[in-house]
Amino acid sequence: MDSDRFRVHGLTPRKRRSPLKLSTIWGDGIGNFVPDEARVRYQAVLSPDLEPFEDVLLEKAGPREYIHFDPARTRAAIVTCGGLCPGLNNVIRSAFFELHHNYGVKEVFGIPYGYMGMNPASGLAPVRLTREYVETIHERGGSVLGSSRGSEDLGVMVDFLVARRINLLFCIGGDGTQHGARAIADEALRRRADIAVVGVPKTIDNDILYVSRTFGFNTALEKAKEIIDCAHVEATGAPNGIGLVKLMGRNAGFIAAGATLASQEVNFTLVPECPFKLEGTQGFLPMLMKRIGERGHAVIAVAEGAGQDLFADDEFVCDASGNKRNRDIGLFLKDAIATYAAALEVPLNLKYFDPSYIIRSVPANADDSLFCNALARHAVHAAMAGKTGVLIGLWNDQFVHIPIATAIAEKKQVSLESELWLGVIEATGQPHSFR
Amino acid sequence: MDSDRFRVHGLTPRKRRSPLKLSTIWGDGIGNFVPDEARVRYQAVLSPDLEPFEDVLLEKAGPREYIHFDPARTRAAIVTCGGLCPGLNNVIRSAFFELHHNYGVKEVFGIPYGYMGMNPASGLAPVRLTREYVETIHERGGSVLGSSRGSEDLGVMVDFLVARRINLLFCIGGDGTQHGARAIADEALRRRADIAVVGVPKTIDNDILYVSRTFGFNTALEKAKEIIDCAHVEATGAPNGIGLVKLMGRNAGFIAAGATLASQEVNFTLVPECPFKLEGTQGFLPMLMKRIGERGHAVIAVAEGAGQDLFADDEFVCDASGNKRNRDIGLFLKDAIATYAAALEVPLNLKYFDPSYIIRSVPANADDSLFCNALARHAVHAAMAGKTGVLIGLWNDQFVHIPIATAIAEKKQVSLESELWLGVIEATGQPHSFR
Amino acid sequence: MDSDRFRVHGLTPRKRRSPLKLSTIWGDGIGNFVPDEARVRYQAVLSPDLEPFEDVLLEKAGPREYIHFDPARTRAAIVTCGGLCPGLNNVIRSAFFELHHNYGVKEVFGIPYGYMGMNPASGLAPVRLTREYVETIHERGGSVLGSSRGSEDLGVMVDFLVARRINLLFCIGGDGTQHGARAIADEALRRRADIAVVGVPKTIDNDILYVSRTFGFNTALEKAKEIIDCAHVEATGAPNGIGLVKLMGRNAGFIAAGATLASQEVNFTLVPECPFKLEGTQGFLPMLMKRIGERGHAVIAVAEGAGQDLFADDEFVCDASGNKRNRDIGLFLKDAIATYAAALEVPLNLKYFDPSYIIRSVPANADDSLFCNALARHAVHAAMAGKTGVLIGLWNDQFVHIPIATAIAEKKQVSLESELWLGVIEATGQPHSFR
Amino acid sequence: MDSDRFRVHGLTPRKRRSPLKLSTIWGDGIGNFVPDEARVRYQAVLSPDLEPFEDVLLEKAGPREYIHFDPARTRAAIVTCGGLCPGLNNVIRSAFFELHHNYGVKEVFGIPYGYMGMNPASGLAPVRLTREYVETIHERGGSVLGSSRGSEDLGVMVDFLVARRINLLFCIGGDGTQHGARAIADEALRRRADIAVVGVPKTIDNDILYVSRTFGFNTALEKAKEIIDCAHVEATGAPNGIGLVKLMGRNAGFIAAGATLASQEVNFTLVPECPFKLEGTQGFLPMLMKRIGERGHAVIAVAEGAGQDLFADDEFVCDASGNKRNRDIGLFLKDAIATYAAALEVPLNLKYFDPSYIIRSVPANADDSLFCNALARHAVHAAMAGKTGVLIGLWNDQFVHIPIATAIAEKKQVSLESELWLGVIEATGQPHSFR
Repeated sequence: MDSDRFRVHGLTPRKRRSPLKLSTIWGDGIGNFVPDEARVRYQAVLSPDLEPFEDVLLEKAGPREYIHFDPARTRAAIVTCGGLCPGLNNVIRSAFFELHHNYGVKEVFGIPYGYMGMNPASGLAPVRLTREYVETIHERGGSVLGSSRGSEDLGVMVDFLVARRINLLFCIGGDGTQHGARAIADEALRRRADIAVVGVPKTIDNDILYVSRTFGFNTALEKAKEIIDCAHVEATGAPNGIGLVKLMGRNAGFIAAGATLASQEVNFTLVPECPFKLEGTQGFLPMLMKRIGERGHAVIAVAEGAGQDLFADDEFVCDASGNKRNRDIGLFLKDAIATYAAALEVPLNLKYFDPSYIIRSVPANADDSLFCNALARHAVHAAMAGKTGVLIGLWNDQFVHIPIATAIAEKKQVSLESELWLGVIEATGQPHSFR
Repeated sequence: MDSDRFRVHGLTPRKRRSPLKLSTIWGDGIGNFVPDEARVRYQAVLSPDLEPFEDVLLEKAGPREYIHFDPARTRAAIVTCGGLCPGLNNVIRSAFFELHHNYGVKEVFGIPYGYMGMNPASGLAPVRLTREYVETIHERGGSVLGSSRGSEDLGVMVDFLVARRINLLFCIGGDGTQHGARAIADEALRRRADIAVVGVPKTIDNDILYVSRTFGFNTALEKAKEIIDCAHVEATGAPNGIGLVKLMGRNAGFIAAGATLASQEVNFTLVPECPFKLEGTQGFLPMLMKRIGERGHAVIAVAEGAGQDLFADDEFVCDASGNKRNRDIGLFLKDAIATYAAALEVPLNLKYFDPSYIIRSVPANADDSLFCNALARHAVHAAMAGKTGVLIGLWNDQFVHIPIATAIAEKKQVSLESELWLGVIEATGQPHSFR
Repeated sequence: MDSDRFRVHGLTPRKRRSPLKLSTIWGDGIGNFVPDEARVRYQAVLSPDLEPFEDVLLEKAGPREYIHFDPARTRAAIVTCGGLCPGLNNVIRSAFFELHHNYGVKEVFGIPYGYMGMNPASGLAPVRLTREYVETIHERGGSVLGSSRGSEDLGVMVDFLVARRINLLFCIGGDGTQHGARAIADEALRRRADIAVVGVPKTIDNDILYVSRTFGFNTALEKAKEIIDCAHVEATGAPNGIGLVKLMGRNAGFIAAGATLASQEVNFTLVPECPFKLEGTQGFLPMLMKRIGERGHAVIAVAEGAGQDLFADDEFVCDASGNKRNRDIGLFLKDAIATYAAALEVPLNLKYFDPSYIIRSVPANADDSLFCNALARHAVHAAMAGKTGVLIGLWNDQFVHIPIATAIAEKKQVSLESELWLGVIEATGQPHSFR
Repeated sequence: MDSDRFRVHGLTPRKRRSPLKLSTIWGDGIGNFVPDEARVRYQAVLSPDLEPFEDVLLEKAGPREYIHFDPARTRAAIVTCGGLCPGLNNVIRSAFFELHHNYGVKEVFGIPYGYMGMNPASGLAPVRLTREYVETIHERGGSVLGSSRGSEDLGVMVDFLVARRINLLFCIGGDGTQHGARAIADEALRRRADIAVVGVPKTIDNDILYVSRTFGFNTALEKAKEIIDCAHVEATGAPNGIGLVKLMGRNAGFIAAGATLASQEVNFTLVPECPFKLEGTQGFLPMLMKRIGERGHAVIAVAEGAGQDLFADDEFVCDASGNKRNRDIGLFLKDAIATYAAALEVPLNLKYFDPSYIIRSVPANADDSLFCNALARHAVHAAMAGKTGVLIGLWNDQFVHIPIATAIAEKKQVSLESELWLGVIEATGQPHSFR
């Protein structure tokens, strides 16, 4: 039996047979519908050094034999919110094709500029998607629909869906977006509007729980590796050269850690999960100078959320919502290194790299393209089956349904005892901590 | 308790403490040694439509607290065999660095041109690897050591290891290579030579059991997608244009299926796992002509091992070992399509693509780079712990030890009832079978 | 005074002032109209070892102060013919924008599938180009209009233009296409139809006279270099490895020569301009075996038109027009090398690469993008000024107008005494000839 | 007769026959030595609107039949100075191979870290170059020799050459480097040391006189275009999105102009050559807001040297040599745009891109690879012939010898009346000036 946290809500009734030509029998050579009771185990590892646990089971995603919505009368809408991320257009395109070609949903709309486009006051109107419209969009970065940050009034957005008789809403976005998606789903249920809201998690930082990988992350690693390779070339190209690269990662260092392993050229990887001291015997700056003394060059990858405790409290700025915004650890380190080296009279050649948007506005690479396609089609299967307030996750190589509320309760971080971080320690040769 | 098939052999004694500075306690912020009893579940999915099963458990890979070999007296060798594959140099480099920097193994050798280099009669001599030697090799395709097909006399190879006091042998290669690795491991055990043989599975076709993904496969998909995109451009650029792409995949269609999903431009994907008829109502050729009639162009991806039953028995050639060699299904289809269309008086513009080595001789992409690094380091952990006759697999996102004999007993294929193949059916719109 | 061969025909009258906001004065910081009398010298080099010559002068291209056509009443059409080539879409897009935004021509049509689309019997209809239509096409390979080989009845094509009141026809294509373009221009003149026909030369082989570089050639070199790098990896990755790459170049070896210089990995470059013997002391095969003996590997780049004299006369096939078609020198060499080595009992590992369409169906690279933009805009300037039967060339870094008849009278080839070929000799180390 | 400014100095005697197997006869199918009297015309265009001029003639580069240095006794050295640039390693490699393989010079040294490596006090020692050392360096960005800014004492550097019996010095670098090269050449002449100094001009900004293109520039355009494409994606992906890209170009806007034409996505290109006002009817800011109002997004490319007159004099900082350093026009514009829009209460989404080193530390692309190879080989031909104080230029598609003093007398800039800038005006639609 599922624990409450992982129980997925489904609209009823669900008696309509799916138009997909699939089988329910293994062995006939035809792909199968996924029973609603199918589950994916959360824990793959059994080990004497782990605490005993009860199995956590996640609902397996996939096409259902019986669905809730009548394709002929269903209207769907897709919205992309928050910062850009490689693969947005791939998700839009595959969702459209799955709805249109495979389920036979005739009306699929794209909502312009995020949730803003669901507020009639914006003056924006949904775009009717067609094969011609989406045909080549997967070759391009960004979102053809446009995106925006922030939300709109909940009532206004649900009114929008009801007024346009939209039954399926696909919300592609991060934390805040999924928060909104869940609220829309709840409000629609409260109003007994026949609307399923399915989230496709989007965060280039890869920091969503129960989602082993978010789309765009792989492409981001590829680009981040390219930048690190440039930094390595600059570091080795000048006497006492240092390449300092600031990478995305507000709360989690997955990009910095992954790009470190992909490039193998980083000597110091700094992430939010692992606080560090600048000075003192084990401090970062003395260790850096030691490396410079021994090898004549160094490459540093720092996640934007790293070392925030190094700033005095009054240096923080809050955004509109009252959240502390990260200070710029890249520029901070650049200055700190220069000052420290100057005091030691060591001449340095420091080159600073802040690739920022370059990493996120490129088209999805092959691996993300493939992944986005699967995410989009699973989102459509979920929505047609009437699943709502749910997002599409990936766990142990299986697509799963996770209640949005559960997925956004916390953020995923790099465990300092994970294989990933161990890999970083081994590849960089840096100590377990700078303290 | 492990089933016999998954029991890994380990050299004894194993009482030496690992030089790696890891912990055995969760929660101290320091990465942990992996207990030898740690296991990874094979089955992640529980579903009412599956047969009841007993859990299959695989030995978890990772650094062991107690190891068999004394790093100060250990000599290691690395050999790359069979066809080239993106990532070979990455594996060589990371294995060297893990041995050298982290375990302190001073002597690591590269064996030139595969198993041939283990036969003194070849006149080839091992290369002593150094940091300078391996420093930039991960940026390049191929294998700096060179590779070759085929094996050498077992006694000669073990003599070679014994004579050079080599304790660790890393065999990077496919099926045949692992067969040889296992024989070497067995013979070394028989002779009571203190030698651990660890395999790193290499097959661009991704067709090894208990290994959800082999290195180089991701890069191959990326390149295959590029070729398919070219084929799509050619198909749409001419009246009744057809782009026909032959891709690697002798026994398994993973590259063809994956590249289909990554590109989203393929209309027909033909793989060895799914036999097809050329003619008849549901045959491939009539379906192709139907598409041409309706849309004016088509893209076909065919795995080299597809449709081998279409050749008459006497058209087969056997290789040295007496194995049937695949006939060229690409050229066969090219001709069959031309003949069929000519009979119908439909003028076609067919462009044929045979990218072959182009896909395998490029450098590893970021994702494979990262993956090769982890494979290599796990291989070193296994070997230092005295594991032998074992290869490094990946299952449910965890690295595992698989006895070579078990891994090569059969080949992995694309299940026609898998999510992967269902994805292909959905993305291409092709029928479940051409029969 | 121009020699007759370089005299460009212009429609009269030409009294309308150009709507472009340019200047006629040097030094005012505003770009200038180009006087119709401006010329570009053909000969840049003066040398005692050259025969004395009289200067050949080519008409300089560029915007004219007085033009022939009234933008408000002008209708333009663009047609792409022959094989695909990187940059076709860039030319279409920039021509559209120059016509539409800068000259104010309201109606611009794209003709589908080459000259075929100018024959109403094909059932094809021109597409009205718009900003939305062309906006992103430059990011993609191929031609959005489609292309085809061959021509249509001259009268039918001119009727088509007259019936649709098309005044400007831009013909993007090679030799055969320009032949057609010239015929259309002549017939239009004969009929006194107010039509200007301007050619944009397209041949990936770069073999057009008075055109130092054709668009797409640079991109083709880039891709060909990638393939050669793969061949080099394969050659060095196996004992006695040979990478044999067949490249485009039916009559001229520019791609093979250029890619040799770009990659620096080729040991033997074979082109149509330099016949070679296979056997004999200075023959290609003994030289190849010598290199294999000394260095253990070799890379060969062969243009498809090389070595055609090695085929017996009866091995040739003629195409529809009665032209001899090239025999496959790539496969021929592959077999000849294998046979020769077998006779000497030298085991080889030969890998054959036939990239063909892969090189031509990719999007234009940055350099070709920039170049295509300039070509297209110059073509529009020429057409608006009433130039007809002319193509846009590039000579001594200047865009020029060349009468089509003059440009297609012969084909450009690699001079064996040019700096380009000297570079190949120096980079490969091959002899001046294999004879 | 050459004007004094273009007269190249050559060491005498020059009686030794070149070991290159070239011809002096046209038509024998063998490449030719270049007579010392061969010249390249500077002016290719003849036009009624140009002032009458006398022909400027540049000395044609290329292998000479009679050379000054005896290869068997010649020692050569290569030094790379200043900022990194794509292609440095290609030049080093081809120069080595030309010297070693073709001329038979046995000793070729690489000087570490620029001119610093010619001062024994630095503790740095030259590296003996070998085939193994240079074999794969052309695949990598940066300089394997390392580079540095600034010069050393002239006497010390010439002492260094004399002490090590170095006859040929190849100086790869920009303005400052060539200044140094010329001084070394002069001092060596004064001392009657038998030393030829040849410069290979390196400036990613492409701002050297008599050099139509510097190496690395083409690669820089390619990368700059990629960044602009990202900026375009970000601009179109958000309501009132602006992508602002700062590109290299301290004194000249060639990169900004070229990347504008390559991408076709820029709406405003700002370069040092074209001063602009921010406000006023024709000012940049009102024009930008107009575009935002009409199209909802805009892309701006600004060269780092643009708009320096917008800074108050006291905002400038001088570097060690007393030169004014550019202020950061990128950040300045970012703020100015934000302030201006805020005053108008127009909400903007501005994304700022500062790719800097990313553009210059990548490997050379195919076109630059080919170009670097030719530059390097021409530099060797020049040096072996005894040319000194000369750099290798490219003009009207011909390699030429330019006296260093002449080449560095001024800097090349984008002419606002050139075809290049006209292209920018046409592609962006921006006015001729913002004034």
